[in-house]
Formats: sequence, C-alpha cells, structure tokens
Amino acid sequence: MTTAIDGLIEKGKAARAASRRLARLSSEVKDRALQNIASSLIAQQEDLLEANESDYRAGKSNGLTEALLDRLLLNPQRLESIAADVRGVAMLPDPVGEVFDMRTLSNGLVAGKKRVPLGVIGSIYESRPNVTVDIAVLCLKSGNGCILRGGREAIHSNTALVKLIRRAIADAGIPEDSVQFIDNTDRALVEPMLKMEEYIDLLVPRGSSNLIRFVAEKAAMPVITGGIGVCHTYVDRSADLDRSVDIAYNAKVQRPTVCNALDSLLVHSEVATQYLPRIAHEWAKAGVELRCDMRALSILGPVQGVQAVPANEDDWGKEFLDLVASVKVVDSLEEALEHIEEYGSGHSEAIVAEDYSAAMRFLDEVDAAAVYVNASTRFTDGSQLGLGAEVGISTQKLHARGPMGLREMTSYKWVVMGSGQVRS
Amino acid sequence: MTTAIDGLIEKGKAARAASRRLARLSSEVKDRALQNIASSLIAQQEDLLEANESDYRAGKSNGLTEALLDRLLLNPQRLESIAADVRGVAMLPDPVGEVFDMRTLSNGLVAGKKRVPLGVIGSIYESRPNVTVDIAVLCLKSGNGCILRGGREAIHSNTALVKLIRRAIADAGIPEDSVQFIDNTDRALVEPMLKMEEYIDLLVPRGSSNLIRFVAEKAAMPVITGGIGVCHTYVDRSADLDRSVDIAYNAKVQRPTVCNALDSLLVHSEVATQYLPRIAHEWAKAGVELRCDMRALSILGPVQGVQAVPANEDDWGKEFLDLVASVKVVDSLEEALEHIEEYGSGHSEAIVAEDYSAAMRFLDEVDAAAVYVNASTRFTDGSQLGLGAEVGISTQKLHARGPMGLREMTSYKWVVMGSGQVRS
Repeated sequence: MTTAIDGLIEKGKAARAASRRLARLSSEVKDRALQNIASSLIAQQEDLLEANESDYRAGKSNGLTEALLDRLLLNPQRLESIAADVRGVAMLPDPVGEVFDMRTLSNGLVAGKKRVPLGVIGSIYESRPNVTVDIAVLCLKSGNGCILRGGREAIHSNTALVKLIRRAIADAGIPEDSVQFIDNTDRALVEPMLKMEEYIDLLVPRGSSNLIRFVAEKAAMPVITGGIGVCHTYVDRSADLDRSVDIAYNAKVQRPTVCNALDSLLVHSEVATQYLPRIAHEWAKAGVELRCDMRALSILGPVQGVQAVPANEDDWGKEFLDLVASVKVVDSLEEALEHIEEYGSGHSEAIVAEDYSAAMRFLDEVDAAAVYVNASTRFTDGSQLGLGAEVGISTQKLHARGPMGLREMTSYKWVVMGSGQVRS
Repeated sequence: MTTAIDGLIEKGKAARAASRRLARLSSEVKDRALQNIASSLIAQQEDLLEANESDYRAGKSNGLTEALLDRLLLNPQRLESIAADVRGVAMLPDPVGEVFDMRTLSNGLVAGKKRVPLGVIGSIYESRPNVTVDIAVLCLKSGNGCILRGGREAIHSNTALVKLIRRAIADAGIPEDSVQFIDNTDRALVEPMLKMEEYIDLLVPRGSSNLIRFVAEKAAMPVITGGIGVCHTYVDRSADLDRSVDIAYNAKVQRPTVCNALDSLLVHSEVATQYLPRIAHEWAKAGVELRCDMRALSILGPVQGVQAVPANEDDWGKEFLDLVASVKVVDSLEEALEHIEEYGSGHSEAIVAEDYSAAMRFLDEVDAAAVYVNASTRFTDGSQLGLGAEVGISTQKLHARGPMGLREMTSYKWVVMGSGQVRS
C-alpha cells in the first residue's frame, strides 16, 4: 500500500512538473499533438481493440449487464468517432493566453486579465474508455496536466489508450508526463488521491451519484460536482400541446440513461385531461413507466396501454436514468416553481408555454444550471450549447455552471503594465 | 452549546430564505437600501460611537496594542469615510441580471448566460469594524445574503452596525434577514458554522494566515483563500534605477502591514552594487530592516546607517507585514523566476525592467494573482484596479483570482429559449 501511494505521489509530481511546461506551449504544438492522437487511434487500432477485448471478456465473465458491456466496447467505428472528436477539439480556439477586461486606469497603468491553465486536473470516472481520451484531450488543449483514474472494468483499454496518447504527444514535443494514468484500480487508492491537493488543482468526478458524493466529501482540493440531474419539464396552461408532446417525448426517450433526460413531468390542471393521455400514449410506445400523483393517475389510470402506477414520495426528486417518469398535476406556475425548487437538483429545467410572462418568470426564478423555454432539456451538453466539447456538467455555482468546456478549465491572472506608478 | 448551534442554524435558514427574495430585487431597491445605510451611519453615529467606546475600553484593559486599538477605533471622520464607501458601491453597476455569451445556435435555439447571485456568503473576520459594513454592502448589492462572524474585540461595534444595517435595508423593502450576524463570539461556534454548507454557499475568511488555513481545512463549503501575500520585486539588469528606487520604496513603506506590500527584493548582480545602497538609504530613512543573502550583505554591510543583517532560510517566503524586507542578489532573470516560483505565495509579483523581452517573459511565466511590470505591487486592490471595492483578494485559481469585487460574488445560469427544439 505504501509503495502504491508513493507511486501515486510520483505521478502527481511528474504531472505538476510537466504542467508547468505545458502551460507555455503554443496552440500550434498542442493542436499537432491532438492530431497525432487522432491518427494514432486509427493507425494503432489493433492494439487498442485487443486490449478492449480483454476487458470485454472479463466483463462478460464477471456478469456485467448488456448495457454496461456495450458502454465498454470499442470497435473500428467507435474509434473513428473518438478520433473525429479529438480533431474537433484541435479545431476549437485555444482559451489560453486570451487577454480580456484590459483597460488604462486614470494613473496610466494598463491592467487586465490573461487566461491561464488551472494546472493539473484529476479525474475519477467509471466504465466508458472514450472518457479517457475526452478528458486527456480537453486538458491538453487547455494547457492542463491530468491524472486519470478510470474504472477497473476498462483497465486494459484505458492503459492502452493512455500509452498511445503519451507517445503521440511526446512526438509533437509535449512532455508525456502531462498525462498520468493510475493503473492500480484498488479502491483503497482513491482516498489518498483525494488528499493530493499539492499536485491536483481541481478534481472532476464522473460517474454514479455515490462516487460524486464520496469525492466531494473527502477531497482536499476543489471538486466540480455535477452530473446528477433531476430534470423537470413543466407544461403550462398556455402551452402548445403538440410541442409539449414532442418536447417531453424527446426529453424522456431520446437517451434515458443520461443526466439531462426528463425525470418528472409537471402539467397544469387546465390542460392535464387533454395533454396527459397524448404524451402517455407516445411514451407507452417507447415503454415508459409513469409514476403518477393521484390526479394524474385518475386521468391516466383508465387509459388503455399506458403503464401508470401511483408514485411513492421518493419518486419526486429521483433521477431515474431509465424509461420511467414521475407525473404530477399542478394548479399554477407557482406550484410548479415550488415543486422544482424543492425536488430539482439544479441541473436542467424546462417550461413549455406560449404565455410570455410565464416563460420569462420561469427563466428568472428557476435556480438551475440550465433553464429552458420550449425546448428539450437534452441540450444541456457542451457540444450542443456551442462549447465544442465538455469535461463534465457542473451543478454548482462556483467557478463554472453547466457544461465545462475548454474555457471552464482555465483561470486568469491580472497583468499590470506600468511606467513607474506608485501608490499614494 | 446545543442551543447556540441551533441559533446558528436558525440564522442560516433565515439568510437562505431572505437570499431567495434578495436575488430578485431590482438594482433600484438595492441601491436605495445602500443609500439608507450610508445616511444612517451619519445620523445614528452616537449609538455607534458609544458601542465602539465599549469595545475600545475593553480592548485597552485587555492590553491590545496601540496598532490594534487604532484599527478598532471609530470616530465621526471614519464613519464619514465608511458612508462614502457605501455610496460608492451604490453607484457601481449591478452585476446581477447581466446577460452574456448569448447567441443563436444553428438549430435556432437562443442560448447564453445570465448572471445570478451565489446565494449566501459567510464571512469570518477579525478586528476592524468597517469590514462588517464593507462585506454586508457588497453582498447586498450583488444580491447575496450574508452571515457575518466578526472578532470578539469589535463585538459591540459590530452588533450596533448590523442592527443599523438591518433597519436601513428593511426601510428600503429588503428583508432584514438578508444580513445575519453571529453575536456569540465563542470560538467553539466557528467550526459548526463551517459545516453549514446547506445554508452558506461560499465562505470568505479575512484575517491572519492561521485563521485562513483553519477555515480552508475545516469548511464543508467552498472557501476563497487568499490575503496572504509574499510579494517580490525583481530589479532587472535593464531596470531604470531611479524608477526601481521609487517602486521598491513605495511597495515596502507606503503601508507595510498589508498583503500586497513588498517582502522580498531581488536584484540582478550587474546592478546590485549600484542599486542596493540607494534603495537601502531610502528604506533606512523609513526604518526598514534588511535581511540579506551573503552577496547583498557584502554590499550593504559596510554602508553607514543601514540596518542590514544576514537572512535566515525562513526569511525567504515570509510575509513580514512590517518594515522588514529580505534582499537577494541573483545572476539572471531565470534565477529570479525560480526564486519567485519557490517562495512566492501567488499574490503579487513585480519586475522593474526596460528590456522588453525580460518584461514580457516575467508577465508570462510568473504564476500569481497579479503580475506587474514597472509598478508597485501595492495596486493589487479592488478599488485601485477598477472594481470599485472588494470582499477580499483571492490567491486561488478557481472561480476568481485577485481582488473579488461585485462580479466575483456572482454565478450564472444558462438560459435557453426555443421554439420546440428537440435533440436528434
């Protein structure tokens, strides 16, 4: 154990030293390194697929579910798509070095801010091997070193991917120590990593809510918490009901296992009898189970082909990550707002409404990372919102909120250029 | 103790509830409240001065130093000046509600960010009663509730000030519970406050480095660490020496007890014999003690009237907060950069140079909240850098770096306005 912890600290020191050089590299060098990674993902796919097969076989014999096995799987198409994402990041503007808020003060000092990397990013994540590439590439582009700790299911794939990344960046002139990987998946090593505040400036956990809570509680360095989404869509009495069907259907069904999917549908009582059977019919075709309050149940209970059951108290404020939605009838916008304040996780919340004042009030009063009018909550995503990519989604208010792209992986320093100014 | 902790939690709940209303108040209401506070500070000065006299008498009989007693003292002129600062904050633009980075995405979604308050700010601070007014006023203007815990020396003054503030804001239509004050100065209550992450979104400690370290270590909510400044001024071989004397003199002497004052002077060996006696003479007039490395001592030791003694190892990287400076001769810009990287606290660092490349390299490579060319480090201050006022100075990289003004007391949310968009 002591040796393993020493090894961890060595990686921390190496990442810290490399990050100092990385912070000063030009965009040209960083982008060339990213292009190298993309080409290597294609050129060296045999090694990657072989390593992935070991993980897949082990996963199968350890009884992983089909869904988890599918998340784990790499194949030539998926590698193509990962490589395309890497090239996409290479093409984004480099946030580092941006000078902003610059002005000349009355005493002649020229003062403003210059964007700089944060330093070293730690990430603890589960399962999908593409996350290894995503995070490494976003950290490199934003000039940050990284220390990655993936799940044990993907250990062979992740090891092979990091080896490839380190070689590809070294070829472009970036210190390979910029990307560190913890290949010991012993859970006992997570807590010592969380105490490495001297070497890790920010920790981004990605995975189950248990993992995120554990990291937030134990970490000595700042943590970006997020990725837990209890998302509501409220159908106002003024809503266009066709639109409301499309939006709630998309938010629940298009990809139910993700954090920005709909968990709870709130419907104004004036449109509930008209709207609920329509959305329930559509959802039924996709196999969605509805957990209803008494009023919703009295409308949906008699409807043929709809799986409507009474909701338990803990179905409100629950992230289902599955084809399940809780459904509640409310008598006013206020009641919807109060429900969201009580049960929402501050991730993504939507109103469907034609009434201008209702829409504006919802936008103003809902306290969440992303608030929508007349759109699906599924758009809370770095690529969808124009950031190009994301390291994760923050539901905290400090530093960054919502999708964390390249700019959100940076800090700034004040630069002040004088000609002999002193303070009087 | 249990009752005292219950009382603390009650204040937390009250601040949280009030902050929800405060977040939605118009700038007009907030500014009227600030003007009320300013007028009350003048109109009700008798009560304030009486309360302050109790603190002053107690401080005197408890043996506070003259410097601490002076920090504690309120008088009509100081109240005038505090009131003027409050009016100054009222006149700053309100950061809340600012909409930025708004654009229309290719699918027609209009997406951007809207600035919102953080929620409830906690502050633990020592001694000076004007800090109570500063923090309360900056929190109010930025739409945040606050929970203040001042030092026991100023308990009567702070109690009277908070009473005045709460009455003044209530008159303007702001819930008085927006400003909470912990009037129990039992140290045992600090730790329970640091566990109130449910009610406090951000903690800003102001005071000694011991206090700041304690808070950073124990707090369950995010903390802005800062205010500890080990500041270097490096005189390059290309420096204008007249300017170097003015800048180093100002940085050390103008106000030696603050975090942005000079602690360490680094001088290039090519100009050391010429420069060091000049600055040492000027500093000697102000009573500055010089702790020198061997080379600086060999130059300054023989100089009449200069207090030059050998430096100990712990004089490097020390925040003196006094008329003391450590002095070192270096052979290159690189050596200066390495010394600053090793011993600096990431607060404020300056180079004096006429060589363009040396100046630019210093700006690029020094990793600190504020980096200066040819100016005194004393400008690291919210008012001086154009923020109008500051809650504190952050030396961390996350969220905000350098002086924390009104904008740094806010977060944002994504607002997304659609016309039925769903994700494909």
